[in-house]
Amino acid sequence: MAAIKVHGSPMSTATRRVLACLYEKELDFQFVPINMAAGEHKSENFLALNPFGQLPAFEDGDLKLFESRAVTHYLAHEYADKGTQLLIAGSNKEAAILDLWTEVEGQRFNAPSSAIGWELFYKPFFGMATDAAVVEENEGLLGKVLDVYETRLTQSKYLASDNFTLADLYHLPNIECLLATPAKKLFESRPHVSAWVKEITARPAWSKVLAMPKH
Amino acid sequence: MAAIKVHGSPMSTATRRVLACLYEKELDFQFVPINMAAGEHKSENFLALNPFGQLPAFEDGDLKLFESRAVTHYLAHEYADKGTQLLIAGSNKEAAILDLWTEVEGQRFNAPSSAIGWELFYKPFFGMATDAAVVEENEGLLGKVLDVYETRLTQSKYLASDNFTLADLYHLPNIECLLATPAKKLFESRPHVSAWVKEITARPAWSKVLAMPKH
Repeated sequence: MAAIKVHGSPMSTATRRVLACLYEKELDFQFVPINMAAGEHKSENFLALNPFGQLPAFEDGDLKLFESRAVTHYLAHEYADKGTQLLIAGSNKEAAILDLWTEVEGQRFNAPSSAIGWELFYKPFFGMATDAAVVEENEGLLGKVLDVYETRLTQSKYLASDNFTLADLYHLPNIECLLATPAKKLFESRPHVSAWVKEITARPAWSKVLAMPKH
Repeated sequence: MAAIKVHGSPMSTATRRVLACLYEKELDFQFVPINMAAGEHKSENFLALNPFGQLPAFEDGDLKLFESRAVTHYLAHEYADKGTQLLIAGSNKEAAILDLWTEVEGQRFNAPSSAIGWELFYKPFFGMATDAAVVEENEGLLGKVLDVYETRLTQSKYLASDNFTLADLYHLPNIECLLATPAKKLFESRPHVSAWVKEITARPAWSKVLAMPKH
């Protein structure tokens, strides 16, 4: 029985962030599918693991965690010697550059990319109508973020350094979602962003996430 | 000349997050006021420090950083032996609990509290009309987050542990803003949250931030 358990759905972007990290670190884990359509994420058992009632929840032995970025940060530190090195080893000043770009993802990339994904990917999937004004506003916001990335990616191969780190990994679920929508033009129109998107979505660990059975 | 420089405004919530950390750590620093009304945050000089053109920007010798949470995370690690200990010392599992609650602030508390602050504090200040529907929606979202805090604060004195940490500090600027609006009822109606708010806003380091001249 694996000590690491992920309670989530392979369709949930936050669950995918944790799964991508587990595959990069080549860690054994038990996946516990949570059926959102059946409301399992609002059950007493799940709320004991994540009081916000949102996917995923995570266990490693006695440790119970939630928030996908906190989980992956823990995995990268606790299992530093396994699989892909997702951190920047070195001084606090070097580590700060990784923190900077993970914060940029969490505070600047995540909200507009999630909003566009909801409008253009999930709403049509659920038979709901897309709000074009929301798409337009968030495409404007996301475009400005990607302009900064375009410049940054002329300075280093990946966002935080010349190596793939958590900062890149955090982007994968929302990028994958937008690639299935017309909003992919925001990536394709920026050459360095486009090359980075191709590179990070082609990682074997990410392919394993996408190949998981959709419960 | 101090090695640490903060370019920002004492009225900006993100600048205040960094200033609170500097005062907690009892560090010398140079404050470089940026006049947003004059558009100084969009000047070439400022954009070289923060390409997103938002306050604050930060320097410590050769290190240039932005994103208030990345800056404070760096300060807490680099100056671990100075002033207030803002981290959880110990194993990766213990540190993960701090990461969890800083992520909760960044991903769950920040957006609705910022939206309410904009509508009820900043918009009236700039002579703009408050959107009551936006306030109502975000008060609902923030109330659910504070329900989780209310339970959490029966288990530990502060969010991440029985000591004040970065997880609490991150909340100070938005809480201070909402305390000046009718939305303070969201704190006052929850006894443990209310006690926690009183405790963290009474810290001497926070008083020093509030006492800074408003350039």
